Amino acid sequence: MNRATLIQNIQELKSCLCIGLDPDLEKIPPHLLAFEDPIFEFNKAIIDATKEYCVSYKINTAFYEVYGSKGWLSLEKTIAYIPKNKFIIADAKRGDIGNTSSQYAKAFFTNMHCDAITIAPYMGEDSVRPFVGEKEKWAIVLGLTSNMGSNDFQKLKIEEEYLFETVIRSCKKWGTPENMMFVIGATQSEYIKKVRAIIPEHFLLIPGVGAQGGSLDEVMKFGMNQDIGLLINSSRDIIYASMDVNFAEKAREKAATLSKLMAAYF
Amino acid sequence: MNRATLIQNIQELKSCLCIGLDPDLEKIPPHLLAFEDPIFEFNKAIIDATKEYCVSYKINTAFYEVYGSKGWLSLEKTIAYIPKNKFIIADAKRGDIGNTSSQYAKAFFTNMHCDAITIAPYMGEDSVRPFVGEKEKWAIVLGLTSNMGSNDFQKLKIEEEYLFETVIRSCKKWGTPENMMFVIGATQSEYIKKVRAIIPEHFLLIPGVGAQGGSLDEVMKFGMNQDIGLLINSSRDIIYASMDVNFAEKAREKAATLSKLMAAYF
Repeated sequence: MNRATLIQNIQELKSCLCIGLDPDLEKIPPHLLAFEDPIFEFNKAIIDATKEYCVSYKINTAFYEVYGSKGWLSLEKTIAYIPKNKFIIADAKRGDIGNTSSQYAKAFFTNMHCDAITIAPYMGEDSVRPFVGEKEKWAIVLGLTSNMGSNDFQKLKIEEEYLFETVIRSCKKWGTPENMMFVIGATQSEYIKKVRAIIPEHFLLIPGVGAQGGSLDEVMKFGMNQDIGLLINSSRDIIYASMDVNFAEKAREKAATLSKLMAAYF
Repeated sequence: MNRATLIQNIQELKSCLCIGLDPDLEKIPPHLLAFEDPIFEFNKAIIDATKEYCVSYKINTAFYEVYGSKGWLSLEKTIAYIPKNKFIIADAKRGDIGNTSSQYAKAFFTNMHCDAITIAPYMGEDSVRPFVGEKEKWAIVLGLTSNMGSNDFQKLKIEEEYLFETVIRSCKKWGTPENMMFVIGATQSEYIKKVRAIIPEHFLLIPGVGAQGGSLDEVMKFGMNQDIGLLINSSRDIIYASMDVNFAEKAREKAATLSKLMAAYF
């Protein structure tokens, strides 16, 4: 999906909601376990129930890999089921030497038709480059993540700035606002201004609203640009709203609520 | 596998060779394409031919993911086929917030019975912790990688030292020499002394000998400790020694040669 279409979808829906599909057999409603592919059944119901409130779905690969090749089949079926007008993110945190990153790009872009993949930047330019340059495909580079561990390295001082600022400043040279975004945790709202000073135009993928404690209001206030420029993810709060047979309806309610909160800023 | 057994295997074989199984349908001998699972057939032949010269096999997950759920099946079959006395590394470069890293640990340790997984450290402590602490399982954290991109962030100066030194210094607190190793590229031999000053005891996984241009002699001289403390990986040089029907024999010759070069240092 290209940037113009993504922006148009966001403006039309008045929502920059991305829903994280992190299925866990121990957390999904037990009645689904009777199906041949409970993970896919769960995702399908969540997608059907929430698609009118979100512009994007994010697939956390760990929650599929844990079920091995069967899990990958559920992942492939899920991606194929997501409506074509939704921006599909493989939240895979990949990144390796050039020839290996190229294989990951092929796996997620060419073969699985994802729009974007999240990238861990530690290995530098040749690990990131294979994910940019393909038409309508996006690298979403980890900038400042939402977890406690973001303090360990991302906030180390490199001369006058933080490592995450240096990372963002370097990575933005390897792509454009048409093919690169950055992950900035919602729990890091005091740093979003610093990020916007470096990349006023780029989209930010913001996890951490909800279960992880980030504030939607602060994210919208500090993060929005003239194109909105945000994809705000919620996973557990929406998809695990209920373990009952009415789980999808409860997920829809949660998605609708969050989406309406966003609409107030448009 | 525990540290004592790994050291014993290395001493007995007089080899710290790790062979990287990075299968690529465009590079494997064409006659294998007639098999139902060419990737597995290729790996099986390589393993049979080389197992007397190496102590470890390294599975680069990208080269399986690129074939989707079928690729993951080939990966599972390959891991199951590797002899039990070989140290199995999932070269996956994973790392995410705690609850997600836990899923990756379960995927590779519990379900796939790998001994170790490579970890990208950018997300800090809670992204690394889930990979250490399980009995006889190892986190292999990226320290200083073999690629050009290692100059971009890993060699940034944090006060008096490089970022990779800070990363290693922090990560070693989260594990022990019994459950943590570090990736140090063979192309970075001038830095191995710095690394050994911080972690004299830990094993190092050294990629980059061969196709990437690293020197075995320098790696052995600067990297060995009293327990050897090295796993030296070669992938393309060995597994793609020939595209003919005798490819496995040619791979065996390459593995034997490299292993004998190592034996001279024991």
